[in-house]
Amino acid sequence: MPKKVDHHQRRTEIARVVRELVRDVGVESLTIRNVAESAGFSTSIVVHYFDSKRDMLIFAQQESRRRAESAVRAARAAGGGLEDCVAIILPCSEEMKSDWHLFFAFWGMAMYDEELAEERRDGVADAQAIFAELVVEAQQQGLFDPNADPEMVATSVQIFANGMAALAMQGMQAWPADRQRHFLHEELRRLGYRG
Amino acid sequence: MPKKVDHHQRRTEIARVVRELVRDVGVESLTIRNVAESAGFSTSIVVHYFDSKRDMLIFAQQESRRRAESAVRAARAAGGGLEDCVAIILPCSEEMKSDWHLFFAFWGMAMYDEELAEERRDGVADAQAIFAELVVEAQQQGLFDPNADPEMVATSVQIFANGMAALAMQGMQAWPADRQRHFLHEELRRLGYRG
Repeated sequence: MPKKVDHHQRRTEIARVVRELVRDVGVESLTIRNVAESAGFSTSIVVHYFDSKRDMLIFAQQESRRRAESAVRAARAAGGGLEDCVAIILPCSEEMKSDWHLFFAFWGMAMYDEELAEERRDGVADAQAIFAELVVEAQQQGLFDPNADPEMVATSVQIFANGMAALAMQGMQAWPADRQRHFLHEELRRLGYRG
Repeated sequence: MPKKVDHHQRRTEIARVVRELVRDVGVESLTIRNVAESAGFSTSIVVHYFDSKRDMLIFAQQESRRRAESAVRAARAAGGGLEDCVAIILPCSEEMKSDWHLFFAFWGMAMYDEELAEERRDGVADAQAIFAELVVEAQQQGLFDPNADPEMVATSVQIFANGMAALAMQGMQAWPADRQRHFLHEELRRLGYRG
């Protein structure tokens, strides 16, 4: 099915341009026209793949979310512990910083749009499931307080990651990667991590 | 100086309308025109008080920030402990929910605008100072681990409040006030609070 693959590939290419533009100029300045210009396509080609700016943002956000989830799962498969896996989603790398730009833009819109809100709730549920699995695994390895409730810990980890990103993305000079990692480490220790 | 008072009062009235519109329709749909319509003024009057949409948003955000800070200080003056004071800024009340709508809109813009970013950093520094004072006070009263570093705790409280608001504002049904308060209580206990 070469045509279908091309279709998805083209959408992914456009999503990458959307992410870069949101990072560089902000969601308010994003238009079908400047996406087309940056991607080197005509606007009619962009419109063929996406109905609207909103449609592009939904897909770009899904792509970023999928990539972040894959990176967490890959780190886990490679033997990474809870702390390494959570660290992947903090805005330490350039790639995750541009993902957070997109996430913040998306959250802003999701407060006024039921379909976006549902997509956002799916993201929260997926992250919750991954973190809870990692806590259970750490408990089985004797690396986490066995009395801790994995669901509660997973929610606390989400609160931490969102709050850390909110502070760091607004003042990156005050939040180099090692300071973010230090706060993550302390938070996980308080939650019961012994890794 | 009656004229000056009127000027500030009128700006505050307009800021209230800005906050309500951001809450109801989002920052992207905010225009000088719909602010004027909702406030019952002509657009020329609104333009007399604010040069631009950006200018209105800066002032509205400052008003919300000042009100939240005053509420925290009032709770403290009335004998409220650390937990009660932090709880005031969580999106539990209708008023704080509309403030958080405004804060999220403002953060989104501050990532692309150096003046807004500076205003945002002032907000972070002010919150940091208030929370650190509250921790020192709690330590003096024997209500907080004396070995805890007040600055570190204050930063962790900010991470928590921002992260809690990010989750709750996107899924308010899952986050009634008592659940937010429960997570706050647990977080503060882990940080060393004994109140």
